[in-house]
Amino acid sequence: MEHREFKKLQERTCEYFKNANIIITDKEKENIEVADFGLNDIENTGLQLVIYVNTDRVCSKEMVLFPRQTCPEHRHPEINGKMGKQETFRCRYGKVYLYIEGEENKNKKCNPPAKDEKYYTVFHEIELKPGQQYTINPNILHWFQAGDEGAVVSEFSTTSYDEYDIFTDSRINRIPEIKQ
Amino acid sequence: MEHREFKKLQERTCEYFKNANIIITDKEKENIEVADFGLNDIENTGLQLVIYVNTDRVCSKEMVLFPRQTCPEHRHPEINGKMGKQETFRCRYGKVYLYIEGEENKNKKCNPPAKDEKYYTVFHEIELKPGQQYTINPNILHWFQAGDEGAVVSEFSTTSYDEYDIFTDSRINRIPEIKQ
Repeated sequence: MEHREFKKLQERTCEYFKNANIIITDKEKENIEVADFGLNDIENTGLQLVIYVNTDRVCSKEMVLFPRQTCPEHRHPEINGKMGKQETFRCRYGKVYLYIEGEENKNKKCNPPAKDEKYYTVFHEIELKPGQQYTINPNILHWFQAGDEGAVVSEFSTTSYDEYDIFTDSRINRIPEIKQ
Repeated sequence: MEHREFKKLQERTCEYFKNANIIITDKEKENIEVADFGLNDIENTGLQLVIYVNTDRVCSKEMVLFPRQTCPEHRHPEINGKMGKQETFRCRYGKVYLYIEGEENKNKKCNPPAKDEKYYTVFHEIELKPGQQYTINPNILHWFQAGDEGAVVSEFSTTSYDEYDIFTDSRINRIPEIKQ
């Protein structure tokens, strides 16, 4: 991703925090993470986030999804004998549709990004409106997509080791490079 | 505390969540915890909170302090060989003054509740405005007070075992009884 595009996406992310009335510091604004998962298709597959805290015990993030943007299917495995990440998503603005292992819903509200369907395998839908939340246990496959207004979602979890996440799409590189 | 007073304090707490643009569900409203710490002096010593999640690994709460209300001095000890609670406070609305172990500040912005001064022993001040946060490690003595507008504060932490907290004021009973 070009540096200029990256900065533009950070600014767009700030607009969503404003919509959700979430206050972040100037330093947090500068450090907004823009993840395109190495697929170079951020409007469809991507995630923007501020990491509030990530110690060796606990983590909290504020995530933004643009309208219909998808965070691709993945799971949080055990690392060096330590249980995988347990995470709670709480919707703050817009709507987020979360898909996990379990019975596939009829009339699902989302489809995986076009041409990437083969990398999506779980379709049990959980719809989260502002104030609603859901806890995902370690190793459970999941993906999520924002509704038409985009979404702001708080995450409360155990330590994040994003580099160890296992994605169904083997093309994915979780840690994006920013060209300066 | 009488049930009627308890419900009134829950409603007052909801006003602060509105001020902070934080959306909670009707069930969460009903379950707002009102802690008077057994001191029966809630305007001075008390805390109101919604527990979003508290698993055996991670916890997240949304806390409300009324103007100048104080959460009394305490620490989170090791429990059965398990490290004590590590918690991050993030101010969302108003101002919160946090006091921890360390050098006492001159011109502190808060005093302990009148007549309870002897139960307060740490005076290193950390002022948190909306968007600012601070992480408190296990076993560190701390107390906090809202400024004149009250405060809404998010807490991201390891598991909460409130019943094991150790208060400097030995009169304190953390789990309040509600008279029905």
